[in-house]
Amino acid sequence: MRVVYLDNNATTRLRPEALEAMRPYLGELYGNPSSLHAFGSQVGRGLDTAREQVAALLGVRSQEVIFTGSGTEANNTALRGYAEAAPEKRHIVTSPVEHPCIQEVCAYLKARGCEVTEVPVARDGTMDVAAWKAALRPDTVVATAMAANNETGVIFQYVELAAACAERGIPFHCDGVQAAGKIPVSLKDTAVSSMTIAAHKFGGPKGVGALFVKRGARMKPLILGGHQEKGRRAGTENVAGIVGTGAAAELALRDMPVEATKVKALRDRLESLVLDRIPGSLRNGHRDLRVPNTANLGFPFVEGEAVLLILSQFGVCVSIGSACSSGSTEPSHVLRAMKVPESHIFGSIRFSLGLDTTQEDVDYAAAKVAEAVERLRKVAGKEPARK
Amino acid sequence: MRVVYLDNNATTRLRPEALEAMRPYLGELYGNPSSLHAFGSQVGRGLDTAREQVAALLGVRSQEVIFTGSGTEANNTALRGYAEAAPEKRHIVTSPVEHPCIQEVCAYLKARGCEVTEVPVARDGTMDVAAWKAALRPDTVVATAMAANNETGVIFQYVELAAACAERGIPFHCDGVQAAGKIPVSLKDTAVSSMTIAAHKFGGPKGVGALFVKRGARMKPLILGGHQEKGRRAGTENVAGIVGTGAAAELALRDMPVEATKVKALRDRLESLVLDRIPGSLRNGHRDLRVPNTANLGFPFVEGEAVLLILSQFGVCVSIGSACSSGSTEPSHVLRAMKVPESHIFGSIRFSLGLDTTQEDVDYAAAKVAEAVERLRKVAGKEPARK
Repeated sequence: MRVVYLDNNATTRLRPEALEAMRPYLGELYGNPSSLHAFGSQVGRGLDTAREQVAALLGVRSQEVIFTGSGTEANNTALRGYAEAAPEKRHIVTSPVEHPCIQEVCAYLKARGCEVTEVPVARDGTMDVAAWKAALRPDTVVATAMAANNETGVIFQYVELAAACAERGIPFHCDGVQAAGKIPVSLKDTAVSSMTIAAHKFGGPKGVGALFVKRGARMKPLILGGHQEKGRRAGTENVAGIVGTGAAAELALRDMPVEATKVKALRDRLESLVLDRIPGSLRNGHRDLRVPNTANLGFPFVEGEAVLLILSQFGVCVSIGSACSSGSTEPSHVLRAMKVPESHIFGSIRFSLGLDTTQEDVDYAAAKVAEAVERLRKVAGKEPARK
Repeated sequence: MRVVYLDNNATTRLRPEALEAMRPYLGELYGNPSSLHAFGSQVGRGLDTAREQVAALLGVRSQEVIFTGSGTEANNTALRGYAEAAPEKRHIVTSPVEHPCIQEVCAYLKARGCEVTEVPVARDGTMDVAAWKAALRPDTVVATAMAANNETGVIFQYVELAAACAERGIPFHCDGVQAAGKIPVSLKDTAVSSMTIAAHKFGGPKGVGALFVKRGARMKPLILGGHQEKGRRAGTENVAGIVGTGAAAELALRDMPVEATKVKALRDRLESLVLDRIPGSLRNGHRDLRVPNTANLGFPFVEGEAVLLILSQFGVCVSIGSACSSGSTEPSHVLRAMKVPESHIFGSIRFSLGLDTTQEDVDYAAAKVAEAVERLRKVAGKEPARK
């Protein structure tokens, strides 16, 4: 069956060049980089290169990059690490549209006595810098917001949010998982204290995250027990995976203009086709302040999950909410925070394109989405009035 | 240059069959197992199979196995997870020869008010069950000991240690990293509450650990933010790595008899050759209560690191202490806890064989070790009296 994969915000295909780079480390170059003998230590050079490649993607110094086992681990490390480094401060600022791994760590810290302020987002999913600034307090231990939202693609002005934090001496952690590799990120001259990325969101392997930690940032490690990653993350390195991450980072940086042109044009085409064909449909999130590959579209009188399952039968892969909250019957916390109307919140679908998405893919998907929604509405006997 | 790799306790070569099993998941089968569409969810079957294979290696049920990003992460998860699940209990029992990732988490918990009792080991590195039992208290939140020591290969009677804990209602966590795949492990009818293993120690990929958690064990998760691994470890699964881990576990189980016969015979041959040729040398650790692949041998009047570096020039890979504590100038905490004499503690070397080690490897290594020690002693002008 033809597969039209429009779920690249859930995970991407490992780029063949990244696999090629990994290959020696899945074979001959199997030493432990911590070993003192030459056979082991030569493997460390692969880690060095990968660190430089990831640093280039983020516009930082390679010494400021540590590798983890996932983006989730990196986000856990940052938030708990700041909280533990300054236990006398007991206040956290965040947004209501963060990924569950940020939200759950905030809830964990809240259960241990921290106060958590969620600065509301606008109807279009954006964050007001002035409102953010107003939420900061002298006892704020960390403020955290994402660079781009996983469900809607909406971009936060994270550089400005970070600057507001820096004025008050507050560390700013940014979940950059959905931004890195899709839009230019250059942290060097910003006040961002740390940023998480996940390799499998930009063509790297699953099982590798990275955390930029600005020089001088005070953050305790989460995983203890070895000198690896400058003492910030213990455990034998996933050498092959890290090498693949570096290669994917380099490719993502090279192909960024393709995201901004080809991918964006296809996303806009998909969006127009779907919105034109399906009565009552609307876009969730700001039209322009979005990563180029993501469209979140809402359809009244249908369940998103039912649409998704019909599309799956047609080979079209999309998602509702995030993969990490699947299994939940609750509507998306992101759309709820954006006050998406009840009529649309249960019938919203995320389309996330990739570098290899074609116009045929988009046209096929748009046709099948219209077909699925129409079929479901017929069954339910409901149909919005034509505009 | 010929490479004789005798550092399999640091890491092993990925088995080609494991790489073969991983290949589809590094290519076509790239979906996110948490996705609701068929393209993603089919990937979950690879995880299911791997879970069954790892469960078979440990003699447990597959529902009791969770995957992590490393053995270190699994050990961190277990110890902190027990401590957090029963915060009213503030006492930990352990041994003084544990891996740094156990020791450092104990130190972390100690700094937060837990009392830590280290039950001493005997001169031969073994643990006395009665002494262990005597250290347990009503407020002991977790007792933890390794199955086999990474530096000496000495085996603890962990089933008996676990039973002693169970009598008092105390969870027993076992670091099984150096035992799994080398000696039979069957936890089903034991009181072991949890056990850590690491894929890259038995022919699987780096970047994957697993944690057996006995049904009903009360353990809080370390990494929060998603429903994966039954809520015990959030984050998108390292699918390819986990599939490779399962394949390696199956092969390790199949080849266990080779460890007990061929590998053991070669280890014993290496040990005899070295002890015969080098005056004053001795074995660290119990002769029989050891995993079959490990020999830790001490040579007076030389520095272990100097021996290691000369051997590295000959292509012979060995280690001093553990790779995870490399960079440290302190003598091995394991040998210190065993009260190895000062004359030998700085000149001790770990040899750890693998399934593909040959007799030629062993004979070559023994000759080069003798040569290296002799050369260093000549430089230092020291020589022990011949027996």
